[in-house]
Amino acid sequence: MRAACALEMIHTYSLIHDDLPSMDNDELRRGRPTCHVKFDEATAILAGDALQTLAFQTIAEDERLSSDLRVRLIAEIARAAGTPEGMVAGQAHDLDAESREVTNEELERIHHRKTGALIRAAARCGGMIAGASDGELKAITDYATNLGLLFQIIDDLLDVTATAEGLGKTPGKDARSRKATYPALYGIEATRAQLEVVHHAACAALERIDQPTPLLRSMADFIRERQA
Amino acid sequence: MRAACALEMIHTYSLIHDDLPSMDNDELRRGRPTCHVKFDEATAILAGDALQTLAFQTIAEDERLSSDLRVRLIAEIARAAGTPEGMVAGQAHDLDAESREVTNEELERIHHRKTGALIRAAARCGGMIAGASDGELKAITDYATNLGLLFQIIDDLLDVTATAEGLGKTPGKDARSRKATYPALYGIEATRAQLEVVHHAACAALERIDQPTPLLRSMADFIRERQA
Repeated sequence: MRAACALEMIHTYSLIHDDLPSMDNDELRRGRPTCHVKFDEATAILAGDALQTLAFQTIAEDERLSSDLRVRLIAEIARAAGTPEGMVAGQAHDLDAESREVTNEELERIHHRKTGALIRAAARCGGMIAGASDGELKAITDYATNLGLLFQIIDDLLDVTATAEGLGKTPGKDARSRKATYPALYGIEATRAQLEVVHHAACAALERIDQPTPLLRSMADFIRERQA
Repeated sequence: MRAACALEMIHTYSLIHDDLPSMDNDELRRGRPTCHVKFDEATAILAGDALQTLAFQTIAEDERLSSDLRVRLIAEIARAAGTPEGMVAGQAHDLDAESREVTNEELERIHHRKTGALIRAAARCGGMIAGASDGELKAITDYATNLGLLFQIIDDLLDVTATAEGLGKTPGKDARSRKATYPALYGIEATRAQLEVVHHAACAALERIDQPTPLLRSMADFIRERQA
């Protein structure tokens, strides 16, 4: 549970920083003003910094887990949150890709790192705490990789099709900033077909786990259906 | 050695973020353009974020230390870097204190958290790795608390008396932004006297350590004499 909170802190810190004027410059998040709009930029930067620190502190101080497991969880989350294969590298690549053409491979790579890395780390941390075998951890990794892709594809689609009220953040931003998205590269119909392929791959990976919780399958279904 | 690198990464991340336009708005650091001037704001924010992550990853992956020790070091550094008693809280308090009068106690509290916390953590981590007793860790804490104060007093004095060339950053900024400093509160002569008191307290704490390395004493001397 503390590890889950730590992941939420890492995620929230990244949202606060990504929304900043010099990054994605977003004014609305979850239907409310973003941190720098509600307070100010300095507060938003410091709040993100403090949340990242608190995430690692929370796991390091979790006395219900062995020191070995705590160290594994911290290393796993740090690799997912940082560079070269993690979230911060993905955001840097994403900003760099604005206002220029990107290839399909480049788009996948951005998503793999920007949103995928933390989702994979979350699933793998859950597996580690539950005592998953190496083979099961591999299956969990494949499941989560596809779950992350699924999430990003829906996110891109909603940016094209949804309203600000339903979405809780400003829609249409990706197109205006000419950001690399699935609909921009493939069109809406082909993106919807890609959605089904990725959903199927996520569910197939779960069959390689000895006793998968039904929650993992329903999470893939939930993400496929989400409207906001 | 890896723990020392981790502390340097935390320190560098904090400098990069503190220099940002919405924070201290500094254009010069160590005689060179600050990160957001040389690159851009988004890059500076992400570079700081990535450095913080890498700091915790570096310790978590240090296989020459036991998991127990790694967890202790991570918790120690996180408490010093975050809130409510750490570096980020100190920076938030410092920004809040600009352009208004602060009391002596408030000034000490800002420095205790902003610069003192990480110096204390660095000294304590060294002690932990060297196998210091609880009593020795307490003495190391007292030494480092005074070392941090000594550093801050010199920093404030140099901002009044030094040139940009010698300092490697823009001098006179504190006075212009009406920042809480020792010379502003006590005057230059009383600040110089305070310097000697704090230097003596740092050295006295070292006498409570069984086999103190001469490096610790010479560090206090070095900081007292520094001109940049």
